[in-house]
Amino acid sequence: MSKRYEQLKTYMDRVMAIKTAMTLFEWDNETLAPQEAGELTSQVIGVLSGEYFQALTCSELRQRLKECREDEALSEPEAANVRELWEELEKIQCIPQNEYQDFATLTARATRVWARAKEDNDFKAFAPTLKRVIEYQKKFAGYRANNGKRLYDVMLDDFEPGFSMENLDAFFGLLKRELVPFLKQVAEESKKADDSFLKGDYPVKQQEKLARFLAEYVGFDFDRGVMAVSAHPFTTNLHNKDVRITTHYTDCVDSSLFSVIHEAGHGIYEQGIRDELTLTPAGQGASMGMHESQSRFFENIIGRNRAFWVPIYGRVQNMFPKQLGEVSLDTFVAAVNKVTAGLIRTEADELSYSLHVLIRYEIEKMLIEEDLDVEKLPEVWASKYEEYLGVRPETAAEGALQDIHWSQGSFGYFPSYALGSAFGAQLYCHMKKNMDFEGLLEKGKVNVIRQYLKEHIHQFGKLKTSRQLLKDVTGEDFNPHYYLDYLKEKYAKLYGIEVQEEGLSQQ
Amino acid sequence: MSKRYEQLKTYMDRVMAIKTAMTLFEWDNETLAPQEAGELTSQVIGVLSGEYFQALTCSELRQRLKECREDEALSEPEAANVRELWEELEKIQCIPQNEYQDFATLTARATRVWARAKEDNDFKAFAPTLKRVIEYQKKFAGYRANNGKRLYDVMLDDFEPGFSMENLDAFFGLLKRELVPFLKQVAEESKKADDSFLKGDYPVKQQEKLARFLAEYVGFDFDRGVMAVSAHPFTTNLHNKDVRITTHYTDCVDSSLFSVIHEAGHGIYEQGIRDELTLTPAGQGASMGMHESQSRFFENIIGRNRAFWVPIYGRVQNMFPKQLGEVSLDTFVAAVNKVTAGLIRTEADELSYSLHVLIRYEIEKMLIEEDLDVEKLPEVWASKYEEYLGVRPETAAEGALQDIHWSQGSFGYFPSYALGSAFGAQLYCHMKKNMDFEGLLEKGKVNVIRQYLKEHIHQFGKLKTSRQLLKDVTGEDFNPHYYLDYLKEKYAKLYGIEVQEEGLSQQ
Repeated sequence: MSKRYEQLKTYMDRVMAIKTAMTLFEWDNETLAPQEAGELTSQVIGVLSGEYFQALTCSELRQRLKECREDEALSEPEAANVRELWEELEKIQCIPQNEYQDFATLTARATRVWARAKEDNDFKAFAPTLKRVIEYQKKFAGYRANNGKRLYDVMLDDFEPGFSMENLDAFFGLLKRELVPFLKQVAEESKKADDSFLKGDYPVKQQEKLARFLAEYVGFDFDRGVMAVSAHPFTTNLHNKDVRITTHYTDCVDSSLFSVIHEAGHGIYEQGIRDELTLTPAGQGASMGMHESQSRFFENIIGRNRAFWVPIYGRVQNMFPKQLGEVSLDTFVAAVNKVTAGLIRTEADELSYSLHVLIRYEIEKMLIEEDLDVEKLPEVWASKYEEYLGVRPETAAEGALQDIHWSQGSFGYFPSYALGSAFGAQLYCHMKKNMDFEGLLEKGKVNVIRQYLKEHIHQFGKLKTSRQLLKDVTGEDFNPHYYLDYLKEKYAKLYGIEVQEEGLSQQ
Repeated sequence: MSKRYEQLKTYMDRVMAIKTAMTLFEWDNETLAPQEAGELTSQVIGVLSGEYFQALTCSELRQRLKECREDEALSEPEAANVRELWEELEKIQCIPQNEYQDFATLTARATRVWARAKEDNDFKAFAPTLKRVIEYQKKFAGYRANNGKRLYDVMLDDFEPGFSMENLDAFFGLLKRELVPFLKQVAEESKKADDSFLKGDYPVKQQEKLARFLAEYVGFDFDRGVMAVSAHPFTTNLHNKDVRITTHYTDCVDSSLFSVIHEAGHGIYEQGIRDELTLTPAGQGASMGMHESQSRFFENIIGRNRAFWVPIYGRVQNMFPKQLGEVSLDTFVAAVNKVTAGLIRTEADELSYSLHVLIRYEIEKMLIEEDLDVEKLPEVWASKYEEYLGVRPETAAEGALQDIHWSQGSFGYFPSYALGSAFGAQLYCHMKKNMDFEGLLEKGKVNVIRQYLKEHIHQFGKLKTSRQLLKDVTGEDFNPHYYLDYLKEKYAKLYGIEVQEEGLSQQ
């Protein structure tokens, strides 16, 4: 380690420690903190965010960072940390500290206001807070926008560098064209599938056992991670030896089940990051899209795969003898792949999922680029659901209040879910050429697949961008047609539907 | 708020926010963090402790603090914060930052080394770490010792200002003289009491219900607090609206039961602190002794009181019909007050408890003032137990490894447990003159007692010292004879023992 970088490291460690503390507060808020704690804890988080701001923007760090940017002797991880830190600095140094800090306090509060409003099914109770969050985010994006860059493009950069509105318009345009009609076709066929047994008397204690079993089975390491319960399932991490996932239990067994495999996918990514990178700026997933590619890979490509259940379904039946004892493997697999255009993103089947995301993408553009009046959000939301999915929410909780993201100030995050699904399909298509994917699953060897992903993706953290990772693994730039082909093939096979050839672009 | 104080407040808020973050890490480490997280998280805590050090010792804060110390227009809470902050500053500014930070990393590690060593029953595995902790603490105390003040006296100041070795030698000397022979007498009589039913098949789920019921019943507010499980029960708080207690469950129902009432007592204290004080330096319990006075007041003076169980014992029987259905109230009360000289402090009866503390006090003096070789600790421990309690530990886990405190670097904490018990007895004696204490308990009105304590003690935080609180409430300085009288009367009554008149000093 060069003397210069060593000096920088001291300042970098401060930034990372404060960030880690704020992560712990977020985790604690969502999983444990008592009801009345919020207001005072938000104040603490606000002050800590000020400390973060100062630690990152202090002249000592800036000076050393500048020196290191010119240092050509840095190792690859060192150079990546310098680059990431520089980007983070560029991102926040144009914001006045008091505004930065106020915003942190505001979003800590906003998530609680949102949660209460959702519980009470009262969009109006959340609207003024949401307005303020949007105003701040637009203001901050404005500070950062160079060369007339558009505000929503600035926001997208935070989650998926290399994917602008232009790229995403093309991507989502393709999905809309192809999937809206295909979904109708499949949903009609899929009606036959019986999934009534997935809902019923599934005791939470047994569900907990299943959740833990599945998380471990797909490779989440409980010596370096924990699982808890929260309203909205999520994953976070303090470092690669402390990764945390949550789930929630309802009377639908598949809800927690796939949620756990999804979050375990995120968790496995974070646990797989190299030791030398953890607790440094480059020690996180490459992008939100790449992160979602892994979680949705585990949830869908692995978790909704018939082969996955072959070695373990008997065990699951033993956990729920009354509920699943008489249900055959094929009936179970058909049920967890049933396609129903519904209202709730997180409960959506694999096919309709991206259309939920499409709606959010279009609405975010309207909110940020077209100044859509927040009051009109529920109506816009409902109309789009009717148009693309043929269903209309009756309540705000099922509509514009269903996701936590906007209350956290995350605009530009949603596209990652669809992009990630598409990344995953591209990876899957490539992997199938190199390994007997379904054969491994049938033999219970998820670990071989996990190890492949760790070796080719997880370990690198932010050393490579998502595009670079895709190129290095699959030998090709991002290509959304793999995703469409994957979906069409899968559902055509499941429901005996004939697919028009032009829909396929297999190479 | 004066301009000066307002400026100070900005700096004070930074100090408090970082401290609160470190508290959250400690909580998380003890209750949730995964097994392998420790090493990396210790690094984070080390860096944060450096941030704390800098935030407190920075020249801007010091300058404003100096100004405020001369400001005669400050309100009482403001003046208290200035005083507390000044004391904290004096305490750490003489320590080099790197040593301060290394020590924080060391103790974060040491608690894990201790936990492992205790599990493995291997004192030698902990000894080198303990030596390092002691060396640091002696060095730090050395930096702080003015005018030839002795090292252990410096340490005692952190927990109970106003009580030096001279005071404590007198206090513990009295306890030793009076209680060692009295304990023998009572233990002999107490053998008759049947407490076999307290141990057995007590399902954890039912114990959890009982724990929650009791905590709420004595007044712990779950809207402003949470309860979790940890190896060593403790209480901590982020502020007065986020107070956290832990317990642990064994096959002895009384273990968790009284532990919960004890920790709830601590928690009620913190929840009772005035809003204007919370998240400021004066917004904590007056001293560790006063804190323990409240926890032990709830545990013993309330919780082991026959009157306490009158309105709720039926309910407890309903929770455990097989285990307690046939056990009468009087048999139950006799059992939870059974006196047995044992090995474990936290499971000790109310009478022998202070002798466990006496042993630790004597050993701490030897470690700090007489340079006792750490290797000899188990032997010294065992001999003292044999001398004062007539029992000798067979293992290190039952002996010198039983408490977490030393691994945390806390030397001088233990005396607070005995002092607190004595404070509590003095308060009780006074309260009985002003209210029908047992009558209230019999009517299920614990809240009247709690309200009294809140009004006279809890709300003040650190606005008053423990001595001042005792004076203001009872009209008298600390007087340990109340404690002896309380114990002698209680056990004489319970077991029909004749007490020599000179033992009593009722006024």
